[in-house]
Amino acid sequence: MDDEQYAAGLRMLAEVGASAPEAMIDSLREVSPELGRQTIAWGFGEIYARPGLSPRDRQLVTLGVLTALGGCEPQLEAHVDLALNVGLTREQVVEALLHAAVYAGFPRALNATLAAKRAFDARE
Amino acid sequence: MDDEQYAAGLRMLAEVGASAPEAMIDSLREVSPELGRQTIAWGFGEIYARPGLSPRDRQLVTLGVLTALGGCEPQLEAHVDLALNVGLTREQVVEALLHAAVYAGFPRALNATLAAKRAFDARE
Amino acid sequence: MDDEQYAAGLRMLAEVGASAPEAMIDSLREVSPELGRQTIAWGFGEIYARPGLSPRDRQLVTLGVLTALGGCEPQLEAHVDLALNVGLTREQVVEALLHAAVYAGFPRALNATLAAKRAFDARE
Amino acid sequence: MDDEQYAAGLRMLAEVGASAPEAMIDSLREVSPELGRQTIAWGFGEIYARPGLSPRDRQLVTLGVLTALGGCEPQLEAHVDLALNVGLTREQVVEALLHAAVYAGFPRALNATLAAKRAFDARE
Amino acid sequence: MDDEQYAAGLRMLAEVGASAPEAMIDSLREVSPELGRQTIAWGFGEIYARPGLSPRDRQLVTLGVLTALGGCEPQLEAHVDLALNVGLTREQVVEALLHAAVYAGFPRALNATLAAKRAFDARE
Amino acid sequence: MDDEQYAAGLRMLAEVGASAPEAMIDSLREVSPELGRQTIAWGFGEIYARPGLSPRDRQLVTLGVLTALGGCEPQLEAHVDLALNVGLTREQVVEALLHAAVYAGFPRALNATLAAKRAFDARE
Repeated sequence: MDDEQYAAGLRMLAEVGASAPEAMIDSLREVSPELGRQTIAWGFGEIYARPGLSPRDRQLVTLGVLTALGGCEPQLEAHVDLALNVGLTREQVVEALLHAAVYAGFPRALNATLAAKRAFDARE
Repeated sequence: MDDEQYAAGLRMLAEVGASAPEAMIDSLREVSPELGRQTIAWGFGEIYARPGLSPRDRQLVTLGVLTALGGCEPQLEAHVDLALNVGLTREQVVEALLHAAVYAGFPRALNATLAAKRAFDARE
Repeated sequence: MDDEQYAAGLRMLAEVGASAPEAMIDSLREVSPELGRQTIAWGFGEIYARPGLSPRDRQLVTLGVLTALGGCEPQLEAHVDLALNVGLTREQVVEALLHAAVYAGFPRALNATLAAKRAFDARE
Repeated sequence: MDDEQYAAGLRMLAEVGASAPEAMIDSLREVSPELGRQTIAWGFGEIYARPGLSPRDRQLVTLGVLTALGGCEPQLEAHVDLALNVGLTREQVVEALLHAAVYAGFPRALNATLAAKRAFDARE
Repeated sequence: MDDEQYAAGLRMLAEVGASAPEAMIDSLREVSPELGRQTIAWGFGEIYARPGLSPRDRQLVTLGVLTALGGCEPQLEAHVDLALNVGLTREQVVEALLHAAVYAGFPRALNATLAAKRAFDARE
Repeated sequence: MDDEQYAAGLRMLAEVGASAPEAMIDSLREVSPELGRQTIAWGFGEIYARPGLSPRDRQLVTLGVLTALGGCEPQLEAHVDLALNVGLTREQVVEALLHAAVYAGFPRALNATLAAKRAFDARE
């Protein structure tokens, strides 16, 4: 990952108004700056920035993945916030998590929905 | 779940052109007809049919959930097929699964992509 | 889900002496009342209320599922409490979670057992 | 694990009429006889044989765990067979897997139910 | 599990300088002393003590398993600490968790890395 | 990911004698060449090639991750093969998977061990 890809990741993050990655980078600074760098350079600069799928569509996929994984509530909060930045409404986020209950079960959907609530509250 | 909800599920399935659920219902007929009935009546008649999220958006969430769960390749095939019926292109499905690699890792994304390939092939 | 099913869910919850769902409903009231409603109407009114398996048997299955899923400790606490209401002893709950270690590994069993401890303590 | 525990495991397996472990032991003979030995000596001789929970209750927990894990369909077949040996009816097994759908989602419950069907068919 | 195996487990733990299991045993004393005993007697006395793989190698496997499972952050902290005791450097632990991101995705790797950070900090 | 990173990935793969990725690339050629390219360019050219952890150590982590994930048996076969190329013995691989049973449970360890057996057989 060269500096260009990292810069592309930062541009992508700025474009979608993501603030959480900065906090993540800070939390990793002492322990694994490379993990933070890869998240931005590869995750956002290389994959997220690809033109084949809109940020709004990507966030729907991400909400599905994170809900199903479980145990990723902090990431869910960040991605719910990002989802709202790129065009999903709160109602759509909440409906997406209800929809996920069919496939991932109620406990995962409940945990994800409470994370969404925290993300909503943090915007106020 | 009364007959009305089951009928709503069948209408929803017809609307999105889903054929796989019929095969699923058949496979369950002898062992658990109730599981098949609940999938249709609740999963499709009650949740999928809700107006708050379009079928196309729902399929993006479902692709994310099923990719992350792993071990659900037959369901992924059915839902990729359904995704194409409701407005996602093959390129978007493939991109969604590449996107999922960031959050669920490459092995899950690879298994899902091979399931998508089988779904694509089956349409030809 | 009509009102009848929701009422059936509330009756089922009352029958097994579940108090946690009320707290869950409250926590969801602002963000996703529908998720709370579906948990009660479908999860309890439609599925849990079916006659084919006793509440005691259902709780053993649920303890197995939640232990294996991981990351569902709040739900485990609620379901351990419910398990005690419907005839399982503390010793049987603890033994069920030790048994789960064989199939889901020690870390999941340990997390579940500490959740059970919190549920036991909360009853005192 | 000494020979005594292994012998206790074999006795436990005989008591519950399990035949699948023998096939498993055979499949492991060349690659990891120790894994087969530990499954029997520890899993069955040490844990399963404990008096605090009946074999029927243990199988309900195991069905929940294996359904939630996913990707363990061969083990599910073996444990459904075992479940029938220790007092669960086919209807109860099927109901337990429907119940699991609430907590682990439909795809996991569907995969488990089809494994149960194979176990039922194999007994005929 | 007889006393000899438990003693072997305690010796193994002492050999690798593990202090966390004592805290775990304490936390389980009232609720499930048997789970604590089995963790030590079987997990450490029987499996960990086997000569076929060095403690350093075992910890690399364990870091991979716990990162992939998710929701096991307290266990990860304990096993990162143990990893440092048996010859892995902080840099290698951090690199192992970055490596895990390829196969288990970034959210799991991030959670694991933050747990490693807490383990590092606790040693100071 | 530019051509240089892809070339670095191919060099890394050649260095560890991996042949499976070629088959994977082939299987993805029609459906998602980009997923194949990213696996090589990022997974191997960017992460695997980092100097902080030896290939042998990386494979131990990978075996742990893939065993815990479940449902990744084809990838496990490929990574067991790779593990043997970079200095792990068959006995160490088998022991690593037995070790994983403590943390991920027996079913996952069994599935992984049978995948290892297939990888061993394929080398003969």
